[in-house]
Amino acid sequence: MRKILVLHGINHNMFGKRDPKQYGTVTLEEINRRILELSETLEVDVEFFQTNHEGEMCDRIHRAYEDMVDGIVINGGAWTHYSYGIRDALDILEVPIVEVHMSNVYARESFRHHSVFGEIVQGVVSGFGVDSYLLGLRAAVASME
Amino acid sequence: MRKILVLHGINHNMFGKRDPKQYGTVTLEEINRRILELSETLEVDVEFFQTNHEGEMCDRIHRAYEDMVDGIVINGGAWTHYSYGIRDALDILEVPIVEVHMSNVYARESFRHHSVFGEIVQGVVSGFGVDSYLLGLRAAVASME
Amino acid sequence: MRKILVLHGINHNMFGKRDPKQYGTVTLEEINRRILELSETLEVDVEFFQTNHEGEMCDRIHRAYEDMVDGIVINGGAWTHYSYGIRDALDILEVPIVEVHMSNVYARESFRHHSVFGEIVQGVVSGFGVDSYLLGLRAAVASME
Amino acid sequence: MRKILVLHGINHNMFGKRDPKQYGTVTLEEINRRILELSETLEVDVEFFQTNHEGEMCDRIHRAYEDMVDGIVINGGAWTHYSYGIRDALDILEVPIVEVHMSNVYARESFRHHSVFGEIVQGVVSGFGVDSYLLGLRAAVASME
Amino acid sequence: MRKILVLHGINHNMFGKRDPKQYGTVTLEEINRRILELSETLEVDVEFFQTNHEGEMCDRIHRAYEDMVDGIVINGGAWTHYSYGIRDALDILEVPIVEVHMSNVYARESFRHHSVFGEIVQGVVSGFGVDSYLLGLRAAVASME
Amino acid sequence: MRKILVLHGINHNMFGKRDPKQYGTVTLEEINRRILELSETLEVDVEFFQTNHEGEMCDRIHRAYEDMVDGIVINGGAWTHYSYGIRDALDILEVPIVEVHMSNVYARESFRHHSVFGEIVQGVVSGFGVDSYLLGLRAAVASME
Amino acid sequence: MRKILVLHGINHNMFGKRDPKQYGTVTLEEINRRILELSETLEVDVEFFQTNHEGEMCDRIHRAYEDMVDGIVINGGAWTHYSYGIRDALDILEVPIVEVHMSNVYARESFRHHSVFGEIVQGVVSGFGVDSYLLGLRAAVASME
Amino acid sequence: MRKILVLHGINHNMFGKRDPKQYGTVTLEEINRRILELSETLEVDVEFFQTNHEGEMCDRIHRAYEDMVDGIVINGGAWTHYSYGIRDALDILEVPIVEVHMSNVYARESFRHHSVFGEIVQGVVSGFGVDSYLLGLRAAVASME
Amino acid sequence: MRKILVLHGINHNMFGKRDPKQYGTVTLEEINRRILELSETLEVDVEFFQTNHEGEMCDRIHRAYEDMVDGIVINGGAWTHYSYGIRDALDILEVPIVEVHMSNVYARESFRHHSVFGEIVQGVVSGFGVDSYLLGLRAAVASME
Amino acid sequence: MRKILVLHGINHNMFGKRDPKQYGTVTLEEINRRILELSETLEVDVEFFQTNHEGEMCDRIHRAYEDMVDGIVINGGAWTHYSYGIRDALDILEVPIVEVHMSNVYARESFRHHSVFGEIVQGVVSGFGVDSYLLGLRAAVASME
Amino acid sequence: MRKILVLHGINHNMFGKRDPKQYGTVTLEEINRRILELSETLEVDVEFFQTNHEGEMCDRIHRAYEDMVDGIVINGGAWTHYSYGIRDALDILEVPIVEVHMSNVYARESFRHHSVFGEIVQGVVSGFGVDSYLLGLRAAVASME
Amino acid sequence: MRKILVLHGINHNMFGKRDPKQYGTVTLEEINRRILELSETLEVDVEFFQTNHEGEMCDRIHRAYEDMVDGIVINGGAWTHYSYGIRDALDILEVPIVEVHMSNVYARESFRHHSVFGEIVQGVVSGFGVDSYLLGLRAAVASME
Repeated sequence: MRKILVLHGINHNMFGKRDPKQYGTVTLEEINRRILELSETLEVDVEFFQTNHEGEMCDRIHRAYEDMVDGIVINGGAWTHYSYGIRDALDILEVPIVEVHMSNVYARESFRHHSVFGEIVQGVVSGFGVDSYLLGLRAAVASME
Repeated sequence: MRKILVLHGINHNMFGKRDPKQYGTVTLEEINRRILELSETLEVDVEFFQTNHEGEMCDRIHRAYEDMVDGIVINGGAWTHYSYGIRDALDILEVPIVEVHMSNVYARESFRHHSVFGEIVQGVVSGFGVDSYLLGLRAAVASME
Repeated sequence: MRKILVLHGINHNMFGKRDPKQYGTVTLEEINRRILELSETLEVDVEFFQTNHEGEMCDRIHRAYEDMVDGIVINGGAWTHYSYGIRDALDILEVPIVEVHMSNVYARESFRHHSVFGEIVQGVVSGFGVDSYLLGLRAAVASME
Repeated sequence: MRKILVLHGINHNMFGKRDPKQYGTVTLEEINRRILELSETLEVDVEFFQTNHEGEMCDRIHRAYEDMVDGIVINGGAWTHYSYGIRDALDILEVPIVEVHMSNVYARESFRHHSVFGEIVQGVVSGFGVDSYLLGLRAAVASME
Repeated sequence: MRKILVLHGINHNMFGKRDPKQYGTVTLEEINRRILELSETLEVDVEFFQTNHEGEMCDRIHRAYEDMVDGIVINGGAWTHYSYGIRDALDILEVPIVEVHMSNVYARESFRHHSVFGEIVQGVVSGFGVDSYLLGLRAAVASME
Repeated sequence: MRKILVLHGINHNMFGKRDPKQYGTVTLEEINRRILELSETLEVDVEFFQTNHEGEMCDRIHRAYEDMVDGIVINGGAWTHYSYGIRDALDILEVPIVEVHMSNVYARESFRHHSVFGEIVQGVVSGFGVDSYLLGLRAAVASME
Repeated sequence: MRKILVLHGINHNMFGKRDPKQYGTVTLEEINRRILELSETLEVDVEFFQTNHEGEMCDRIHRAYEDMVDGIVINGGAWTHYSYGIRDALDILEVPIVEVHMSNVYARESFRHHSVFGEIVQGVVSGFGVDSYLLGLRAAVASME
Repeated sequence: MRKILVLHGINHNMFGKRDPKQYGTVTLEEINRRILELSETLEVDVEFFQTNHEGEMCDRIHRAYEDMVDGIVINGGAWTHYSYGIRDALDILEVPIVEVHMSNVYARESFRHHSVFGEIVQGVVSGFGVDSYLLGLRAAVASME
Repeated sequence: MRKILVLHGINHNMFGKRDPKQYGTVTLEEINRRILELSETLEVDVEFFQTNHEGEMCDRIHRAYEDMVDGIVINGGAWTHYSYGIRDALDILEVPIVEVHMSNVYARESFRHHSVFGEIVQGVVSGFGVDSYLLGLRAAVASME
Repeated sequence: MRKILVLHGINHNMFGKRDPKQYGTVTLEEINRRILELSETLEVDVEFFQTNHEGEMCDRIHRAYEDMVDGIVINGGAWTHYSYGIRDALDILEVPIVEVHMSNVYARESFRHHSVFGEIVQGVVSGFGVDSYLLGLRAAVASME
Repeated sequence: MRKILVLHGINHNMFGKRDPKQYGTVTLEEINRRILELSETLEVDVEFFQTNHEGEMCDRIHRAYEDMVDGIVINGGAWTHYSYGIRDALDILEVPIVEVHMSNVYARESFRHHSVFGEIVQGVVSGFGVDSYLLGLRAAVASME
Repeated sequence: MRKILVLHGINHNMFGKRDPKQYGTVTLEEINRRILELSETLEVDVEFFQTNHEGEMCDRIHRAYEDMVDGIVINGGAWTHYSYGIRDALDILEVPIVEVHMSNVYARESFRHHSVFGEIVQGVVSGFGVDSYLLGLRAAVASME
């Protein structure tokens, strides 16, 4: 069965805990549960990873190679806008990478309009709350075909 | 049954006819057929519209109000990057609008990195070929709930 | 009697129909009725034209030459910010051209701060709702003297 | 009777005295006389103030509050482009403020294209010579209704 | 015999009618007549098209494919500076495209210094009045060899 | 006893009078009274000066030299963003200068993000309402040691 | 008793050890000792945290929520200029946040003139050496009232 | 005898009093004495004016018209970089205007590299200390011939 | 017989020798031979000059005045993008100057998009290989009429 | 014997494992082995450190002080372009620091053209693959003399 | 007797020959004769040098060192705006360097507003025709004292 | 034996003669002697060339082709920042080109931060004084293998 790695970036452990305007009302656990449900429908394996440490995120992406991951869904959070380190880590992989954002980043502060991952990913899904993840998973599966 | 309007922008009648690098190998008819299929699964009505005339696109968006459309999926093509006229037409509507692109616009010429629709749409799906439309339809349906 | 052409740009047929924040509560018909009233006081003929098609707007401006129009009042709407085509059409005329805006464009999104018509018109009236048109008509009449 | 304060900015005492290209051929006294005439028609009180001192302009704007002025018409001259001090003074008032310019500032040197008052005024009238003041007065009256 | 499509853009129906500084003293008919004369010398078929409608221009460019046109000469007028829609239409074709301008666009307003067609055309001829078209036709013929 | 000069800039005589969003609810007199109280605790002399005239502000700063002032606390208001004249006046002094702002200038309009005094002052206190002055006084005293 | 968290950013463990021009002559221990002294006077609890790991800084800020911290004093060091991750972590909190810098960042390299925390903090204290911390603590306490 | 007005700008009353790096070691009185000496050699009348008030500077420039001044030598100091008001006042005059600076403004802070007077003066003399004034006087006299 | 000077810029002696992508496969001698052939048809005298020395290029342009040259065709090569010296030399002449480029400079590195000669030449021919010279010669002849 | 610390930045553990275009075909172990060989020739001690954690990199640089390291060779990888934190850590040291890059960063994406370490290092070696390290080691040794 | 080298830049051999708008009506010989006259009054030796070759200009500046020149007056012409080579040559000298321009460069094309020599010269004289040289000579002599 | 051409740019004949801050204390002869010594160790032939003439530098680079040079080491001096002519000359060659600078150009004036050669050379060595040349020679030799 194909294997998809779902990466949650910096501060995403706080989803649903505080500040609904920025982080929604759904917890990370709930998001993962919904992704898992969909993965069963789509008949893919999903694995989850969240960290607030850029270095751990890179390490995890590096391991994706040995693990023979078939696709990546990543919500980089604030790292999206400055971590060229994570960008280079992702660029090593040859599988489809889908960038997702819960909010519409193009309608927020101007620093969020530019993604340093933009030119190396397969595509982007932005603005649909938890559904951004579900659509991103579908996009990854479709891109693997 | 909820009604979704799918808008195809300037030059999109040429999809699949020429220049696979820019316009893929799938025709507009085939894209619409696949959207229609999915719409039946999702139990929504879809209507299609393509034009190379900015004015006709605005007129059609205006009519969407009288038609009581519940959502919009739009691939604005090149207009995405300069037609403030279509932006203002879309801004009048209060239903969810999903911006889709078949290619990953963030990995192409720099003029394609900025969307003038960006701050008024619900969200964006970019980079997954025909699947961008299908994911966009799902996104629109999810946003209507 | 002198003749003034009043041009309404893209999306302006929607005035007063939806979205009061962007398009006010007064319909285009009502605006035209009030302009007509004032034109009688000022003893000038007015003619109205609205289109969502850039090409039709250019055609109409070209015809203004054969029609021997004595002045233009134009609210270009979103075209104000990108249609160099309409700019060049207006630039052919030698009569006074008055640019009007219902809202104060300098207090809105930054893309609305620059008018591509700015350096070829006689002057600008911006920010007074329907009165922008009435003041614009007066300005045109005054500029013809 | 409603009261409108007409503010003439830096160098405007020189109107009509020298350099017709920059300052026209009409003196400040003549401009004020024509404004006065119109004010009688419009049934408003007008008061005039000219100074070359930024501090006196601010003081005068501050006094407008105690005086219960109902509207402001201001031609800030060169201050329009750099005096954030006058901008902040105007911003304290809650009555409509109309920015006027005799010349079309958008067709002159590039430093004149930006007004630091732009986002706090009700609207702008620019390019109609003395008529800019008369239209500005009408705009102020209309905005007070 | 090889076939060349000569495209005249927005406002070009006004050539020679008004405003010699912007549009010269030669009418479009005269320009076309001179192109036709040269085409006979060069032994190519030419076809002419002028429109003020971006959509019609795109439609015409799309038809050039079925028509098996061997080359394009285009004076996009003001569209040169913003119509990414026409740019994308042209980009579909694989025949040589020659961009022509009657005036020297590099000596005019700064917005005319950048052509959105620049990186997809074969080359540019700018600044020689009607001769720009004649040289452009020769350039197209030479590029087809 | 050491002597500190507290300078209030353009429009600051209006503190607490109007527009609480911009100028708070505390009057200049109350601010000065609270500074005076603290100065007694800190055992320094304070002197106050407010003007809306750039020239008077410079004159006052020049006099600070003869007066053998030991430190300056300045809230330049709008002058902070353009008065290179006051900047140069301050630059002549060799005593510590503390720049204070009641609001957080970095969270307001972009023109307020840059201070022309920034590189010549000892430091900045911004965002704490009246307490900005009290902290600024403490900062000045600490910097004199 | 109210609780204030004092956060020391990247490289701040080196304060007072090397390079007096950049990091002063006072060690972090001495700084904390002086903050502690003042906290007793002000009757607040202070807790200290220093790390060179962005992830640990975010984790610590997240914990501040469960700990019911009443205010934050943060010297982000170099992170001030690029860590949107720490910015988003801080943005989750609803207590007053005071940004402090020992040096006057506006008089140093241009990359230090912009703070990515600037628009979400309560205010800034910059340029007073160790006193920046003490003033920042006072500012936090004042802002909690 | 021809009459030349020598204008000293903001803060120039402090010449020679403090801060030799910025304001030299020569007082304004000494500068004027040396200009006077040279004026006798050159057989021109000179008049001096210094103010820290922009409004007074404009008033004085306006009076130069009635006084039938034949030339201006102006060291605008910091106003050189932002006072469009003084620029417009100078622009009214038709006599030669010479801009002088004691220091080499092109080797100082970047804000001093641009003069708002630059495009309306006859010429500039910058960088020669007191001699800048003397050379400026000679330049004015030469330009009057 | 009219006389046209054909100027070949820096590195153009290498045409056809190396690096076909940059310098084509045709030698300078061959290019000149083809220009000569055409000149006979057009009944003009042509003279050729190539140098890698900016100073020699200027000297040669200066001599064109004494030589009573009737037109210039210049391919400035890399100098096109920075030699204001050659620009000023060309600006002295009053005959038509045609700027030619073998490659389409608008489709190459961004530094090649701007020509410092652009605003002083009659026009530009770019992108047609050796034919750029031939078309340029025709353009020069046409411009002399 | 002098001691040199060789620092490998983020993702460099992946050298030689994947993506030859970005990370070459030589592993980090091989690179270190070759550096070690050269260090024996040059009679210096070398120590190696690689991490994907910015905080660990800073900690290691801080320890270099206690270790009395005589020089640094650092390939910061993607951190080169944004980690002001590592920049400040390096700036504390007083020994020569040599920045190395295996690829020619000036011929890659534009974000790689700027190094935030650039103004604090001794010098840069870029573009020679593994030899960049060997040359960098020689440069460090030469700089220590 | 002190020795001053007067350097005339690219195209200056054409002074007075053609194009009075750009190069005046006075020849280089006449300019030099007038400089010579003044040098006798000022009791300095002057030597003249003109070249259109950047390399010869550098060589000549290098020789000024062996010649023990006491000052330089340079009108770099177009080189002023791009020749960092001449800038570096001048920077080697330790004698006063005076930059002169006959026209007011700040009132011409924008590329002439910036001088690459600006930050290394003693000062600038610009805008007084031939008198710029004479004033420049006086400035050089005054700077040598 | 392989042959390497060492190119010294504009003003480099002055190395070691004047201005140690800019040009060091070592003469060009000494630099060449040290390069020669190393070339013997590395068993390559080196040839030296210095000129202050851009045209001669291009001619010399062109000759390198006939000479069958195997590599280039170039210190372009000030030309590095503007001579697109030399850039294009170098681009013709297919052998490795190493750009060297004695000073760390990234720590000097901002105009020195950008090299127009950057994207066409093999790599860069900057900041190590005479050793930059020696390292550059080693780099060239290594790149030839």
